[in-house]
Amino acid sequence: MTGEGPATGTGEFALIDKVFKPLAAETPAALGLTDDAAVLAPAPGRELVLTKDAMVAGVHFLETDAPGDIARKLLRVNLSDLAAMGARPIGYLLATFWPEKLALDWIMEFADGLRLDQAEFGIGLLGGDTVRTPGPLSLSLTAIGDVPAGGALRRNAAREGDLIVVSGRIGDAALGLLSLTGELAGLPDAERDYLRGRYHLPVPRLALGAALVGKVRAAIDISDGLIADIGHIAEESKLGALLDWEKVPLSAAARAALARDTALIEPILTGGDDYELAFTLPPGDAGLLEALAGAGGVPLTVIGEMTAGDGVRVRRPDGTEIPLKARGWQHF
Amino acid sequence: MTGEGPATGTGEFALIDKVFKPLAAETPAALGLTDDAAVLAPAPGRELVLTKDAMVAGVHFLETDAPGDIARKLLRVNLSDLAAMGARPIGYLLATFWPEKLALDWIMEFADGLRLDQAEFGIGLLGGDTVRTPGPLSLSLTAIGDVPAGGALRRNAAREGDLIVVSGRIGDAALGLLSLTGELAGLPDAERDYLRGRYHLPVPRLALGAALVGKVRAAIDISDGLIADIGHIAEESKLGALLDWEKVPLSAAARAALARDTALIEPILTGGDDYELAFTLPPGDAGLLEALAGAGGVPLTVIGEMTAGDGVRVRRPDGTEIPLKARGWQHF
Repeated sequence: MTGEGPATGTGEFALIDKVFKPLAAETPAALGLTDDAAVLAPAPGRELVLTKDAMVAGVHFLETDAPGDIARKLLRVNLSDLAAMGARPIGYLLATFWPEKLALDWIMEFADGLRLDQAEFGIGLLGGDTVRTPGPLSLSLTAIGDVPAGGALRRNAAREGDLIVVSGRIGDAALGLLSLTGELAGLPDAERDYLRGRYHLPVPRLALGAALVGKVRAAIDISDGLIADIGHIAEESKLGALLDWEKVPLSAAARAALARDTALIEPILTGGDDYELAFTLPPGDAGLLEALAGAGGVPLTVIGEMTAGDGVRVRRPDGTEIPLKARGWQHF
Repeated sequence: MTGEGPATGTGEFALIDKVFKPLAAETPAALGLTDDAAVLAPAPGRELVLTKDAMVAGVHFLETDAPGDIARKLLRVNLSDLAAMGARPIGYLLATFWPEKLALDWIMEFADGLRLDQAEFGIGLLGGDTVRTPGPLSLSLTAIGDVPAGGALRRNAAREGDLIVVSGRIGDAALGLLSLTGELAGLPDAERDYLRGRYHLPVPRLALGAALVGKVRAAIDISDGLIADIGHIAEESKLGALLDWEKVPLSAAARAALARDTALIEPILTGGDDYELAFTLPPGDAGLLEALAGAGGVPLTVIGEMTAGDGVRVRRPDGTEIPLKARGWQHF
């Protein structure tokens, strides 16, 4: 591990000693963060899976978010990528770009968040870098997991006629973000807190992802939005997708919000950050879903099917198509 | 691979298609960058080595540096960490934080730099993320290599009496940086260009690192500065180190600069960025050095020995100790 600290009066190596080494203490591959790199081999018969996500204050999280929540979300969005591939998590490397005025207390709270989720998901810090930036707090995390050799779930494996299945509830995180930014007001407190919580602290569907290996065809996590991510499966599989709006699983809070404002159908279908899994399997395998839901610890819902053609369409119960302006998370 | 692009008029997925997918085209583990993660297994009998370094415009490189050079230096400093562990490189994941006004041309030149060095070092892009930042251009790269199982070089393996050996020439990069920032003027053009080149485009000593596996005790790359990095070996090995100033290998350009200003001994010994390797081996194994230099394609020089005690001392030919104010690269 290498790096510099923020202007906390704590030198770079002291910061690594104080903040990061404890996070690596139980991970032999990290070599105690004393060396230039971590050393790691997958267990026999397994392959490593590597993913990397970056986040910037003011763009991907709010400056006022709790430091521990920022840390946990960073970790969890990466773990969700592992879940989408069917991988079980092993550990992570972390690059932190600290603004010069960031307080050491802030960093310690950030580290507390990492510690909580390391325990939650059975992973450890493997290495990384910590540098100073004149810009906003920025973070990059590389998560490492493993899958049975040859078993990684892919986006490109859907076939025409496959059922499309999603885990959990869709749209909560997008509504939570609208609430946080003030664009969705008037929610009862309990619904507001639930939706914001779904935005702040997604639950990577790791047990489900691991259970899907060898059982389903294509898989993805819903980070860009339901339409965009089903669209990724469709595009990579050279197919289209047809979703039934009334089958899309909504939380009670989302249903209540939607009852007050039907225009929320748009963020629910196209907003990101739910970090549920979507996958496809042949109609004849629908009988597997109950066992998969049990193994994953999360409800599963069939919401549509893969079709010939391309693109993702969503139909109402009367058969008409729902027009959607946005197609998912893009920064333009 | 996931991400957003800068405000170039190019959407995130178009940017990935245009800039990044070509860089991953020859790396099967990258899965064409179509999925959430890369899938990788070390060859039989080998382990993976993972390292991550971060860089920020204005802190770790100059805003005016050529985009291709920035890309190559980012890659090379990470490859140098692999070299220090004795690993051969496989590929990398890249997180880019693009300022909003960055031109697409700049990004294409950056990608050209990556392409050059991918060919140079036989590696490929495995995945990553690209996001937008209101701050300075920031970069984080995770490099992956492999070593024979159990063979990774460590910092903590030096023993008392070991010879301390460095590759190449020491101090060039620190002098090059002083020249770039205007603190070292009056250099002849050829010397100036040589020293600046050593700062801009370090050469990771990968062949040497691989040749050291199983042959030497402790190893490190010289990124923080000669004194600091020998200090890391000393600290992790619970020893001290005694260096002979007149043995420290200097380039002709560094010798000439030093002849004009003897105070340059300080940046030469404590400045970073040389990315040479330092390692230790028993005095009885000194006969290996010629073969190791041949395998590594770089001269090797014995500059001192590991001692009891702690700390790093540098002595002059008359036996007096050189006082050093700075102990290496820290941002405070």
